[in-house]
Amino acid sequence: MTGAGRTILCEPLTAEAFAPFGDVIEAVGQPDMVINEGFADRFHDRARLDFGGGRAGISLFRARPRALPYRLRMLERHPLGSQAFIPMQATEWLVIVAPDESGRPGRPRAFIAAPDQGVNYLRATWHGVLTPLDEPALFAVIDRIGDGNNLEEHWLDTPYVVEYPRKP
Amino acid sequence: MTGAGRTILCEPLTAEAFAPFGDVIEAVGQPDMVINEGFADRFHDRARLDFGGGRAGISLFRARPRALPYRLRMLERHPLGSQAFIPMQATEWLVIVAPDESGRPGRPRAFIAAPDQGVNYLRATWHGVLTPLDEPALFAVIDRIGDGNNLEEHWLDTPYVVEYPRKP
Repeated sequence: MTGAGRTILCEPLTAEAFAPFGDVIEAVGQPDMVINEGFADRFHDRARLDFGGGRAGISLFRARPRALPYRLRMLERHPLGSQAFIPMQATEWLVIVAPDESGRPGRPRAFIAAPDQGVNYLRATWHGVLTPLDEPALFAVIDRIGDGNNLEEHWLDTPYVVEYPRKP
Repeated sequence: MTGAGRTILCEPLTAEAFAPFGDVIEAVGQPDMVINEGFADRFHDRARLDFGGGRAGISLFRARPRALPYRLRMLERHPLGSQAFIPMQATEWLVIVAPDESGRPGRPRAFIAAPDQGVNYLRATWHGVLTPLDEPALFAVIDRIGDGNNLEEHWLDTPYVVEYPRKP
């Protein structure tokens, strides 16, 4: 149950649910390698990066928090490359994505990400802006550096309202 | 004063001190852009990434902690690309680097990084393995994915001992 009408109910962030939109970057299951004489586990190459024509860069975003219910008024996408968000100092944060429908975002889905979960949006995936919940937060962003217009915004005529799921 | 003989005293991690070895990825000073209608600051493109011939990947390292004094027995380097470490769940962590001297590491330097500081090692920079202090920690690693031998290790005949600086 993810809501009806203009209400979007948050879902847990899982790799399976998120796969059409991108990658969940998290240390779950068995590591791919054990390194450093057993002192570290490597979960290898967990994001489908795409910098088509540009190059990879690492930037930091320092974001002020939002609260739920959250009025979603705009979705954006980056037509030229993927964009990954790695939380450095976060409590929970909100990940909003939408399928593309003929060049416009379709009905959004909202996921609540844990402080130890990053995400990578695939190239041209509609998504909400960075929305930490409750506390200001710092994120490392791995995205495309290069020429060209890599930002497309879609403002909604009627906002959606993103809410916590109802308790069973 | 950074120690004598086989003792290395830790220094604070600053961009200036670390520049010969790589980049400190941190949100200090004025942001390059204010985005998301004022809700986020972007510190733009803060690492000299280099994936020469390969491609960028994002992996996670989950590392067990070490304590100071720390016996440094080995330094390694990646001749084919840069390697960035972004702390996702860390307390303080130790960053050890060394200049190259004719293909071997020279005298190391040790820096204590804060939980909100990432680093990027330049290609072929000698460095210690990932060493969170006190607590297990999770890091996102942005490094080169590709063919070729990208790991060179140098085992020291006599270990160094890395210690906290003496209190004034």
